[in-house]
Amino acid sequence: MKQRHILSVLVENEPGVLSRVAGLFSGRGFNIESLNVGPTLEAGVSRMTITTSGETQIIEQIVKQLRKVITVIKVVDMIDHKAVEREMVLIKISAEDARRAEVLRIVDIFRCKVVDVSATELTVEVTGDQGKIKAIIDLLTRFGIKEIARTGLVALKRGMQ
Amino acid sequence: MKQRHILSVLVENEPGVLSRVAGLFSGRGFNIESLNVGPTLEAGVSRMTITTSGETQIIEQIVKQLRKVITVIKVVDMIDHKAVEREMVLIKISAEDARRAEVLRIVDIFRCKVVDVSATELTVEVTGDQGKIKAIIDLLTRFGIKEIARTGLVALKRGMQ
Repeated sequence: MKQRHILSVLVENEPGVLSRVAGLFSGRGFNIESLNVGPTLEAGVSRMTITTSGETQIIEQIVKQLRKVITVIKVVDMIDHKAVEREMVLIKISAEDARRAEVLRIVDIFRCKVVDVSATELTVEVTGDQGKIKAIIDLLTRFGIKEIARTGLVALKRGMQ
Repeated sequence: MKQRHILSVLVENEPGVLSRVAGLFSGRGFNIESLNVGPTLEAGVSRMTITTSGETQIIEQIVKQLRKVITVIKVVDMIDHKAVEREMVLIKISAEDARRAEVLRIVDIFRCKVVDVSATELTVEVTGDQGKIKAIIDLLTRFGIKEIARTGLVALKRGMQ
């Protein structure tokens, strides 16, 4: 069965680990939809969150291979758990004077933060699950989205499972 | 001179591009502090944002090599521009009944969103620049941070430069 999987991977932050992990996916012709990696509170340990879609059986194989990589400490497939999943996106929108009020109204409904303003553009920050992110991008598209930067999903297991 | 650089890299979303880009850094023993990659509005094109610290001269060399990779469309070093830089972090905090009010007060001051609650824990979402993220992590550490997931910085050039 083909499904979206979010893999949360704790790794030792050494040069080469990212290239190695990414290589496990590309070696099977598997596309990564989004990936991010950043420091944790433990010195030298980073958390990588990988979103990918594919046959469960092949993802299970990739997870097994990940666990064999010496700099990989822990792998959790969030599909096996209840998880909080969130993404942040920066969106730069055309917003000439005449349409600015309308753009700001939408931005307000979605509880976006305006993080930059110029004479002709607005840049907003929005967070949410993939459904919300898709909804706001769809709505803002008709005003003209100039640029977009997405962090990809991060996820943590919900408490008390 | 050693400085933090944020590289914004547009790439064709093909298996292997991430591994290749990461390999350019690790091949020089260069550590990536954070990296993320996600889709843009153009089908098949992803944006990668890489935060790294190092000698400007070496980073310039890496940028030159990135531009030679056939699946790399564009590379911008944000150090050359005014940019909006933001990160999102999920933080799971111990919050037994007795301390919950105190945790919630801090969370409120920093305009975090509470995204999950259980009997003994709170999970919050916070966005901001690296200074703000560091400040809230430092403050919450004394309550006991159980887990953290950081997206790494994303950045867009400010308007009208």
